[in-house]
Amino acid sequence: MAALASPGADARPRAIASPPGTGGEASPVPDRVLMKGNEAIAEAAIAAGCDAYFGYPITPQAELLEWMARRMPEEGRAFVQAESELAAINMALGASAAGARVLVSSSSPGISLMAEAMSYMAGSRLPVVLVNVMRGGPGLGSIGASQGDYLQAVKGHGHGDYRVPVLAPSSIAEAIDLVGDAFVLAERYRTPVILLADGILAQAMEPVKPDFRAVERTHPGWVLDGADGREPRVIKSLALRPEDLERHNLTLQATYAEITAREQRWAGESLDGADVVLVAYGTAARIARTAVERARGAGLQAGLFRPITLWPFPAEALRDAARGACAVLAVEMSAGQLVEDVRLAIEGAVPVFHHGRMGGMVPTPDEVVDAMRRAWSTSEGCAS
Amino acid sequence: MAALASPGADARPRAIASPPGTGGEASPVPDRVLMKGNEAIAEAAIAAGCDAYFGYPITPQAELLEWMARRMPEEGRAFVQAESELAAINMALGASAAGARVLVSSSSPGISLMAEAMSYMAGSRLPVVLVNVMRGGPGLGSIGASQGDYLQAVKGHGHGDYRVPVLAPSSIAEAIDLVGDAFVLAERYRTPVILLADGILAQAMEPVKPDFRAVERTHPGWVLDGADGREPRVIKSLALRPEDLERHNLTLQATYAEITAREQRWAGESLDGADVVLVAYGTAARIARTAVERARGAGLQAGLFRPITLWPFPAEALRDAARGACAVLAVEMSAGQLVEDVRLAIEGAVPVFHHGRMGGMVPTPDEVVDAMRRAWSTSEGCAS
Amino acid sequence: MAALASPGADARPRAIASPPGTGGEASPVPDRVLMKGNEAIAEAAIAAGCDAYFGYPITPQAELLEWMARRMPEEGRAFVQAESELAAINMALGASAAGARVLVSSSSPGISLMAEAMSYMAGSRLPVVLVNVMRGGPGLGSIGASQGDYLQAVKGHGHGDYRVPVLAPSSIAEAIDLVGDAFVLAERYRTPVILLADGILAQAMEPVKPDFRAVERTHPGWVLDGADGREPRVIKSLALRPEDLERHNLTLQATYAEITAREQRWAGESLDGADVVLVAYGTAARIARTAVERARGAGLQAGLFRPITLWPFPAEALRDAARGACAVLAVEMSAGQLVEDVRLAIEGAVPVFHHGRMGGMVPTPDEVVDAMRRAWSTSEGCAS
Amino acid sequence: MAALASPGADARPRAIASPPGTGGEASPVPDRVLMKGNEAIAEAAIAAGCDAYFGYPITPQAELLEWMARRMPEEGRAFVQAESELAAINMALGASAAGARVLVSSSSPGISLMAEAMSYMAGSRLPVVLVNVMRGGPGLGSIGASQGDYLQAVKGHGHGDYRVPVLAPSSIAEAIDLVGDAFVLAERYRTPVILLADGILAQAMEPVKPDFRAVERTHPGWVLDGADGREPRVIKSLALRPEDLERHNLTLQATYAEITAREQRWAGESLDGADVVLVAYGTAARIARTAVERARGAGLQAGLFRPITLWPFPAEALRDAARGACAVLAVEMSAGQLVEDVRLAIEGAVPVFHHGRMGGMVPTPDEVVDAMRRAWSTSEGCAS
Repeated sequence: MAALASPGADARPRAIASPPGTGGEASPVPDRVLMKGNEAIAEAAIAAGCDAYFGYPITPQAELLEWMARRMPEEGRAFVQAESELAAINMALGASAAGARVLVSSSSPGISLMAEAMSYMAGSRLPVVLVNVMRGGPGLGSIGASQGDYLQAVKGHGHGDYRVPVLAPSSIAEAIDLVGDAFVLAERYRTPVILLADGILAQAMEPVKPDFRAVERTHPGWVLDGADGREPRVIKSLALRPEDLERHNLTLQATYAEITAREQRWAGESLDGADVVLVAYGTAARIARTAVERARGAGLQAGLFRPITLWPFPAEALRDAARGACAVLAVEMSAGQLVEDVRLAIEGAVPVFHHGRMGGMVPTPDEVVDAMRRAWSTSEGCAS
Repeated sequence: MAALASPGADARPRAIASPPGTGGEASPVPDRVLMKGNEAIAEAAIAAGCDAYFGYPITPQAELLEWMARRMPEEGRAFVQAESELAAINMALGASAAGARVLVSSSSPGISLMAEAMSYMAGSRLPVVLVNVMRGGPGLGSIGASQGDYLQAVKGHGHGDYRVPVLAPSSIAEAIDLVGDAFVLAERYRTPVILLADGILAQAMEPVKPDFRAVERTHPGWVLDGADGREPRVIKSLALRPEDLERHNLTLQATYAEITAREQRWAGESLDGADVVLVAYGTAARIARTAVERARGAGLQAGLFRPITLWPFPAEALRDAARGACAVLAVEMSAGQLVEDVRLAIEGAVPVFHHGRMGGMVPTPDEVVDAMRRAWSTSEGCAS
Repeated sequence: MAALASPGADARPRAIASPPGTGGEASPVPDRVLMKGNEAIAEAAIAAGCDAYFGYPITPQAELLEWMARRMPEEGRAFVQAESELAAINMALGASAAGARVLVSSSSPGISLMAEAMSYMAGSRLPVVLVNVMRGGPGLGSIGASQGDYLQAVKGHGHGDYRVPVLAPSSIAEAIDLVGDAFVLAERYRTPVILLADGILAQAMEPVKPDFRAVERTHPGWVLDGADGREPRVIKSLALRPEDLERHNLTLQATYAEITAREQRWAGESLDGADVVLVAYGTAARIARTAVERARGAGLQAGLFRPITLWPFPAEALRDAARGACAVLAVEMSAGQLVEDVRLAIEGAVPVFHHGRMGGMVPTPDEVVDAMRRAWSTSEGCAS
Repeated sequence: MAALASPGADARPRAIASPPGTGGEASPVPDRVLMKGNEAIAEAAIAAGCDAYFGYPITPQAELLEWMARRMPEEGRAFVQAESELAAINMALGASAAGARVLVSSSSPGISLMAEAMSYMAGSRLPVVLVNVMRGGPGLGSIGASQGDYLQAVKGHGHGDYRVPVLAPSSIAEAIDLVGDAFVLAERYRTPVILLADGILAQAMEPVKPDFRAVERTHPGWVLDGADGREPRVIKSLALRPEDLERHNLTLQATYAEITAREQRWAGESLDGADVVLVAYGTAARIARTAVERARGAGLQAGLFRPITLWPFPAEALRDAARGACAVLAVEMSAGQLVEDVRLAIEGAVPVFHHGRMGGMVPTPDEVVDAMRRAWSTSEGCAS
């Protein structure tokens, strides 16, 4: 993948020496390259066939925009650093309506500025992939990694009755996969999709296999690509008569039901016979994994349930996973957001606990082990 | 209240003939005046001591802005129709920091545009009252009345770990009361507050007693009112070190816990011995009330639980109210938003059902009665 | 004038000890106060009856905005620091259309941002007074004093066939007078008016008599003040049919001809028998005055023609003043802008020379004397 | 030129049947194609090597933007319809600083919005070509053709001491030539350049030879193209110390002097022995040409002087051309703008008259002949 070499020195994937005996010595193509999360997400979008990128600089997603600034023109595709986050997301709306495969990225405050347009795109049924590299909030906050925008991504953000698929990678390799999936979901269901990352995932470097996936391109029947020889089309979120708008909403809701039925994703680890089930996503899930290992080493039967789609939330799967447990513990880099969906899933069947850090602080595995212990000793079902 | 007479003919409260024998004939002050919800909210804010209003026109909250455009200058206070909703809410941020009592109003799309600044104000601990006269969404949607921004108001909207009190009036008289309460809460807890109304409440006319309440003014120690003779103060939401930002977040969370402990409000009707408990707020609660009456007339023991604070949600009170019931039915002008908080409150103790209309459509009482019947016959606890 | 005492310590006019024997000791009202030009212009506008001020901070006009920020609310009038210069000038357009007496101020780059709205206001015949405290350009330039926006003010700026009266004070006392005149001209002729100052005039302090002048208020028949009981009015600059737009332009041109015939102002010093006539305005005119004195002291018969209205330019008066001279020398803090109007006025009758400094540099009197000498020795008419 | 065929039916150049005997029958490449002025300007810019176009729609330049919207992506170049005219021109500033060959276009009100950035680009010495398709003003005005922005283009517009070359084509073929010249001048002198067109030139169709010219690309030493292996560069218009800013201005003025010395362009017709010399540019020059013919047919010795560079204005050439005449008549689609430069050039040597129409109205040849007659009979030098 020659293009990978083109961005400047500090944005370049770094080849890693192949392990001996794998034949890597003879090959000019590295098995794996070292990439930052931001860079890998960007390059994955390009490989997926992203036609246009719109953004505005903000830490900690800056390298994503910078990567696109160099790479997209190399590929003959569109890169625009717009006047503001509002301009960027509205350009995305327009480009998507015209049939382009569009990526937008920002970080928490910039994402908030996109709330209105996200609702418009959901209402207009426009596929766009939006990356949120979450940082500490609220307000200007810090540039530390955070998960404080969970509820914004899965519940609120824009106005009106809409939802968007939210994908949460917990490694750079998974982020690469999910970028491709995000475009697939966006186009399959004609909906914006959020890829919810955080400052650690985006800025850390991991060795990844540079086998970024192309996403098949269909020619949808709805795009505004010129009305020569056919009836003009209209894309809008406006329906002045409430009856019409409700009918439109029922279509949206049917799509959401279909997504909920078909697209839930999660991963479980050590769940068999687990007394305490941790629930965590993204960077927090990596810490939770270590905590599970340590707890098991110390005799506490712990397991990890990791939702990959935050919406649709894998509620049934979590309920199943928690069936034999005596306590569920949500671990998040936020004050208590994921835990709401955990409670909605568990519906009182098992006591649900929460451990969170805020403002750019990250839980340590030992902290999480302690929180598991507290949950275990507090929950009546465990103590017995 | 002389000032009431000053706005133009079509914005003027309309005196209602007092009932005979009440002495109303002799009095030059009307017992009650006919006011639109938008007008009553505006006038209540003026009486409450609102120093500054910032806004941008959008239906169905237009009369609120128009009323303020006329009345605020009459009172020697500040009215600014800003360049956009973003400009308006950021002016509010500045005015609040300088010690002004501030009202902002808009409708759904305009509210979405304010997401970033709301997070900044929450992070900066700035009291501002924001009125959202919800309309049909998502996107441009319709100008019909809706409750589709429930989750935005109580969960997401801006980024980061913050919540704001959300007050939901179900009559114009209650709206007048809650405007005063909103300013009290905003200043007591140094937080933005949302008054969540809808197009029906805002545009309907009801007779109201023009006894708008003044809100006592304290001189807070934090405002930026000139540093002559004292140490300069700083108001910001920025804390570059995550440790500092987490400490700040813990202060915010402690405030939210205090609000949750002390400020929950709700109203119950016919809840004693109710088999089916309806949960509804705002305009939907008025329909639910009629449905309860009709259901009781038809032999179905129904009751109504009406949350007035949507955040903090009166979860415990609802749990108590539903204790003897066999079914709970959330009724809303949205696709299933309030019902999430109902489920979180009930935690599986009683089956929870949902009836919602969307896009500006309003449920009829008969529809709601049917939904109750379906809930009753579906729920195992009821059939027994 | 009690209100003068209210702004903060650093913005307060400073009383000057009256000369002995003038009775000043007994009087609580100072004869003269020390004011910065920015402050004096602001206070003069308030005294003139300015109802609304809109602006955005920029050096070197910042104190003007700051003064208004404090004083306008004290007077119960409108002060808005808008989101940008564009927002400010468009708010001015709206307020003027609604009948308010409006002041806007900025400095060179901010004035450029107002070009479109100035053309709209000229086309809509809306009276607004705009203060330009010129700084060094082009672009971001410097914050030094300059006269580099002369041609912009009198010729170009916005698009289309319009002109606006441009008043150029050369002392703070004159600035105070011209602020009143600016409002009078604006309303008499329904036109924007520019007060063209520079960073030295605006930031220097001079003792001034605080006898700011009130400007009589007429009730014009064109303002949009509510159509109750009369035909609605429309204010616009749009005329889709070129015939209509030309007719509108002829009305504008007739107004400009009337202004040109009636409102030219200038001042002459030592012009009788002058061999070399200096032409200069604003701060440059003060330097030119000193240069004239020095030149006369050295035997060179010099005089000063100081245009006060830059548009309409006092061309005939200048032609008369230069009739007996052998050279005319334009002195300006710009590269050669005023000199164009001087040449247009002189039409080749006398050789015209130019001396200018740029980018915030100010000519010295000795430089100007040298320039005069060069003009004298170059011009054939002089040498004879 | 295959690319010409790609835009949609209504934007496509129309092949014209070659005259018999020219061999056109056998050739698939048409000798001439029918193009609108807007289209021809756009295609000429593409041929000239324009890398990036930024704009925002406004009549009567809309087809130019539309053409670029289709063609630039086909060529793998950048087309951005920005959020506003301000956003467009500031993107142009950035792209030019990064070494791109940039075109921006708009019409009168949109051009006014670009005043600040034009001054910044002049101060930063950035080459950008800006097309102004003038419409009737001031304000919103009409969409009729006009020359009302002459003074803005050549004198004012942005703040500070700067000038930009202004090229005025009077036919579509000449517009094609001048687009190439504009890029050459912009890069040779590191300056913005204005191509001043009008609604008639832009919207009329004329047969043109599709031999658009490529402009050689030099690699200038000043662009911000990455500082790897060299010292970083800075491009700015800021110079805080007035001494530095003056020095910068002297560099600019030296450039302007060089442009004035080397780049004046004009065309003369029937000037030998002309008694009345018409001066006109653009569309007005075409009318003037017809008027000259009719006048000569009626015995009045008339000639036409047509400036092609409006700045630098060919003053000396005009003075020479008018030497033997008894009257000079400026003909313009404006109230009296060009005539100022004519007067500056003639300096009283010959009486100067003016005939102008406004607001989208266009003079007729007969009107112009009448104006010539009036000039002839008024001027003392003619009557003799």
